[in-house]
Amino acid sequence: MPDFSIGVDLGGTNLRIAAVSSQGELLEKVTLGTKVALGRDHVINEMCDAIQRLSGKYKETGKLLGAGIGVPGIIDMQTGMLRKSANLPGWEDYPVRAEIERRLRSSNKDVRVVLENDANVAALGEQWLGAARGVPNVAVVTLGTGIGGGIVLGGKIWHGMNGMAGEFGHVTVEPEGHPCGCGNRGCAEQYASASAIVRLAREEIASGEAPSLARAASSDAEFGAKSVYNLAIQGDEHARRIFRSFGRYLGILLASLINVLNLDMFVIGGGVSSAWDAYAPNMFEELRERSLVYAATAPADPLRSDSVGKAEGAAAQTESRSERKTIITLALLGSDAGLYGAARVAVLAP
Amino acid sequence: MPDFSIGVDLGGTNLRIAAVSSQGELLEKVTLGTKVALGRDHVINEMCDAIQRLSGKYKETGKLLGAGIGVPGIIDMQTGMLRKSANLPGWEDYPVRAEIERRLRSSNKDVRVVLENDANVAALGEQWLGAARGVPNVAVVTLGTGIGGGIVLGGKIWHGMNGMAGEFGHVTVEPEGHPCGCGNRGCAEQYASASAIVRLAREEIASGEAPSLARAASSDAEFGAKSVYNLAIQGDEHARRIFRSFGRYLGILLASLINVLNLDMFVIGGGVSSAWDAYAPNMFEELRERSLVYAATAPADPLRSDSVGKAEGAAAQTESRSERKTIITLALLGSDAGLYGAARVAVLAP
Repeated sequence: MPDFSIGVDLGGTNLRIAAVSSQGELLEKVTLGTKVALGRDHVINEMCDAIQRLSGKYKETGKLLGAGIGVPGIIDMQTGMLRKSANLPGWEDYPVRAEIERRLRSSNKDVRVVLENDANVAALGEQWLGAARGVPNVAVVTLGTGIGGGIVLGGKIWHGMNGMAGEFGHVTVEPEGHPCGCGNRGCAEQYASASAIVRLAREEIASGEAPSLARAASSDAEFGAKSVYNLAIQGDEHARRIFRSFGRYLGILLASLINVLNLDMFVIGGGVSSAWDAYAPNMFEELRERSLVYAATAPADPLRSDSVGKAEGAAAQTESRSERKTIITLALLGSDAGLYGAARVAVLAP
Repeated sequence: MPDFSIGVDLGGTNLRIAAVSSQGELLEKVTLGTKVALGRDHVINEMCDAIQRLSGKYKETGKLLGAGIGVPGIIDMQTGMLRKSANLPGWEDYPVRAEIERRLRSSNKDVRVVLENDANVAALGEQWLGAARGVPNVAVVTLGTGIGGGIVLGGKIWHGMNGMAGEFGHVTVEPEGHPCGCGNRGCAEQYASASAIVRLAREEIASGEAPSLARAASSDAEFGAKSVYNLAIQGDEHARRIFRSFGRYLGILLASLINVLNLDMFVIGGGVSSAWDAYAPNMFEELRERSLVYAATAPADPLRSDSVGKAEGAAAQTESRSERKTIITLALLGSDAGLYGAARVAVLAP
């Protein structure tokens, strides 16, 4: 049996723990609810119990290489503390890494624990085992309620100066645009996220000229981005317009990322990413117009890059540099990306 | 005597060649006109004659480590050819590196020759010996006729997939903005470059409401960004407004770069950068509003970062990660940055 590590996805809703072999094989996965209301000690205890059970079970057959914890929020990499987290209120100034290490020490002497931002571990997971497997330099844009981002360079997470790199959601795409919770206006996540879709739908409904959207909103208690997508694929012009705008702004964001970073691959993940057919044509239109780098390196058939991308991405590695293509493609691992990436980060950490 | 390398700055106007010791000491610098009209063979011959003279002179006292050539344009790193260059027409599809190597081979067996984009060598020069000395991760934004850019990570140029990383000038800062030669609209260099200043001044003059600018333009045959700056520091409201807009859009660009890359330092260079007092207040205002990363890492007195920056930049290296500051500062080496960087790239190349 191979050596293995533990990956933890500590979300606001679910707490998932997995044992993953160093070759990327999932050995076992445990899903628990995150009982945030019961306090951080309770959550950490549950997590550590599961880590101990998994590591006890598999360490007879391979060595435990460490545990990586993907956390929503801004992390101080040096102290292993959360600086800020919307989903884990009250966890700031709590020595998360030290507390986990302390609890694990009883059964595993000195297991290495690494705390990492959730968008970063998702990016690393897709690079290790997902859409960007074998591609050393990649950015992953996660389209959820907001926009998360992670950059992997040379197979490792690019943290920047203090772990805050990859804040793609707060790149300005419309200087006088919609206000964002971060203090800026016109952030990408105000235009190309699930909450942006709902906001734009509500604006269309308020205009009184989008009866289908209004009907859907009043009849569906769970009205959201998915509902708007369903109308869009049925041909509703108002819903389609929302996704065209979404694609346009996502394209503006990606064009800037490509112009700055010139990476081999950009992976689009998160719940809303699956609406690809509704937003991708406009996204690629913007990319061709707005990025001279993309225009010089665009594949012949980028719209099919969700399927073609994987083959081209691998092929690009062997082609001469001047022939290499910028691949834009969908993520493959869904929410498991973060679990795999967390397991990987525990092995890569210096 | 120490080992040394040769740095070449092959511009559209000047051809400069320097011998630089591996410790960064300038041994000798030669400046020639670039007689582009006489053809590429003539220019390459002149360059190689100078390289041979310098390397012959200093190789008796130290080893020649290589020659780096900074070139304006897009370079195919693998083949050592220019793919595109506005300032060196007719050089595309010409094996620049191979031709230089061939000519040098007669007197120096197998001297290593590296071709590199001029904005990239300027960035490396500032990182090696200029404003970002001792700072491993830095981006240099060069404000000239357009905007050039270079990214240095871990003390090495970040090329991206095929050498096109760092195209900061073509990041979209105004989605429906002024058309750019690259095919996009609203590129940063349409708002924060010398040519942008002149365009905005001409627009102010055309409105008939900027008499000072109109007088300056009609009386000064060399009316340009510098003339507008002179009016701005004399208090002319129209000229001041142009620089406020310049600072605003430069701030939007930098905010996005900081949010994406979270680097230790951003160095502003190029001719227009020296108008710092006219544009920096608005630039910093945008940075604070538009970058949560900058807001979390801003120095107490960023406006003085052209002087304070150097000390803080060095100090930041020893502070704890969470205390590290994002430094925005002026370049120090002027046009010599490219020469030093070219000499450095010859030593760093794998």
